[in-house]
Amino acid sequence: MKLLDIYAKMQDDIQYIERKLEGSVRTEEAELNDASLHLLKAGGKRIRPIFVLLSGRFGRYDIERLSHVAVALELIHMATLVHDDVIDDAATRRGQPTVKAKWDERIAMYTGDYILGKALDVAANLERPDIHRILSKAMVQMVIGEMEQFRLFYRLDQSVRDYLLRIRRKTALLIAVSCQLGALAAGVSVPLSHRLYKFGYNAGMAFQIRDDILDLTGTEKQLGKPPGSDMRQGNITLPVLCAMRDARVREAVEAATRGTTPDEDALKQALKLVRKSPGIREADELSHRYIDKAIGALNELPDIPAKKDFVAIAKFIADRSH
Amino acid sequence: MKLLDIYAKMQDDIQYIERKLEGSVRTEEAELNDASLHLLKAGGKRIRPIFVLLSGRFGRYDIERLSHVAVALELIHMATLVHDDVIDDAATRRGQPTVKAKWDERIAMYTGDYILGKALDVAANLERPDIHRILSKAMVQMVIGEMEQFRLFYRLDQSVRDYLLRIRRKTALLIAVSCQLGALAAGVSVPLSHRLYKFGYNAGMAFQIRDDILDLTGTEKQLGKPPGSDMRQGNITLPVLCAMRDARVREAVEAATRGTTPDEDALKQALKLVRKSPGIREADELSHRYIDKAIGALNELPDIPAKKDFVAIAKFIADRSH
Repeated sequence: MKLLDIYAKMQDDIQYIERKLEGSVRTEEAELNDASLHLLKAGGKRIRPIFVLLSGRFGRYDIERLSHVAVALELIHMATLVHDDVIDDAATRRGQPTVKAKWDERIAMYTGDYILGKALDVAANLERPDIHRILSKAMVQMVIGEMEQFRLFYRLDQSVRDYLLRIRRKTALLIAVSCQLGALAAGVSVPLSHRLYKFGYNAGMAFQIRDDILDLTGTEKQLGKPPGSDMRQGNITLPVLCAMRDARVREAVEAATRGTTPDEDALKQALKLVRKSPGIREADELSHRYIDKAIGALNELPDIPAKKDFVAIAKFIADRSH
Repeated sequence: MKLLDIYAKMQDDIQYIERKLEGSVRTEEAELNDASLHLLKAGGKRIRPIFVLLSGRFGRYDIERLSHVAVALELIHMATLVHDDVIDDAATRRGQPTVKAKWDERIAMYTGDYILGKALDVAANLERPDIHRILSKAMVQMVIGEMEQFRLFYRLDQSVRDYLLRIRRKTALLIAVSCQLGALAAGVSVPLSHRLYKFGYNAGMAFQIRDDILDLTGTEKQLGKPPGSDMRQGNITLPVLCAMRDARVREAVEAATRGTTPDEDALKQALKLVRKSPGIREADELSHRYIDKAIGALNELPDIPAKKDFVAIAKFIADRSH
């Protein structure tokens, strides 16, 4: 089954979540309202809601209950994006101006806080202390992941392990929790919800590695932002870490990440060398290993259509070009 | 009973909360750890924890359960302070450098997010959906209050009603919720917890009005920051709104808040005129009316020592000079 078929099959429920997302952030405070809707309308892949819904298929599927989890998780994800944009000084995301660029820093800050508050407000509909506990712990880990990312900016001496720990907190954890909470909200047993967590975790690792590869190899049109954005910011990702085992590439990356205002020529040269290096392939292989692990985690789960959908999505993640 | 006596009587429990606060934010991520502890050690009046504890006296007082509410509320309050400092560009708060000044904007942003995540993590210890719902709604209203404050910066045409609505969301609500949740966590009935909410709400309004008066009349030593900070930022508070009914004062305030870089001479002149105006007294009278309402809200509550303590604190709030 192709990815588009999965989306088509889930269309009604995805649209239901979309309406709930929009409804959840509406407020009479005009700027918070507009900035939040701007963020929502800029789209996104909605991986977290989709993972929530599919995980819910392993239990008593109740779209209303699942929507609380899906909306809360997508809002938490969006809140972190808008706060990241304040710090990153990014002008565009997904081809749209960022809240900071379109409004200002202050509005970006409070829009993030507001969306986070709304996320918790939606989650409060679920009278499940276990879900609240998992959510708050994931939020804390995500922030620590963001801090780690910044601490390691421009650090060419970081290890692959540093990178993996960081994307684990920054990305994989919230995707893992999407599966876990979708399952728990549908009354799936704790052990099976943990299998789904494992699936989400490994799929999330693969997703972020693929994202980091695409940032190097994609076009501006595919990415919605200029390629090489990570290196431009000093964010040293897995393909670059692998590529730097070649001294010539390492020197080029050093030149490109020296000082905080990037030298565009040095950056272009470094990007070119990384793209041609085995680093891309090595990162790609690791991404596929995570996908294999993700699919392996599904083994003990019943053979329902959602399982096949998860497999198809996992395969897509590792090979996607956008 | 004097305020110091109340603090002395509660000392063991306040110190217990203090240790819990410190423990709650500890992390291996060095910068988040240091910035969070810096914030905590800078102190503060701990009004929210104290109101939680006193409200808990109207039910089954269990310091462990109450500490979850007290710590969560104080952390939410701290998270909003550190985010405000990012926007306000403040160099000091409570006589200490702000996180933004001592570290940077990025760390202030993520420290706020981190502390907020930890607040929810602590609140998750209470398996009480009603408490989660009240907390998340209060958070949303606080952010809306912050946005309103900024929207009305430099707006001399705002009404007293605008001001009151704003401080209600920005300050009074979280203090009201401190009383309400302290009561609910101690098993107090919903109607009585609502009386305590009313007490907290009115005491919170009085507290903020008094704070806004002190910002005009206090010394740098008393305030831990230069007097007139609100006006310097374009934050038009109640005493200034009242004082501006005099055209001469209004002109001086206009001159002091023209452009975003304040003219120090104009500011001094405006401060001087506001201080001498009846605006201070009028604001003070309103603050006292809120205190009377706060004390009135306690009427139907049983005559336990905590009630007398609340009355003493309320009286202190309206007359405090720091």
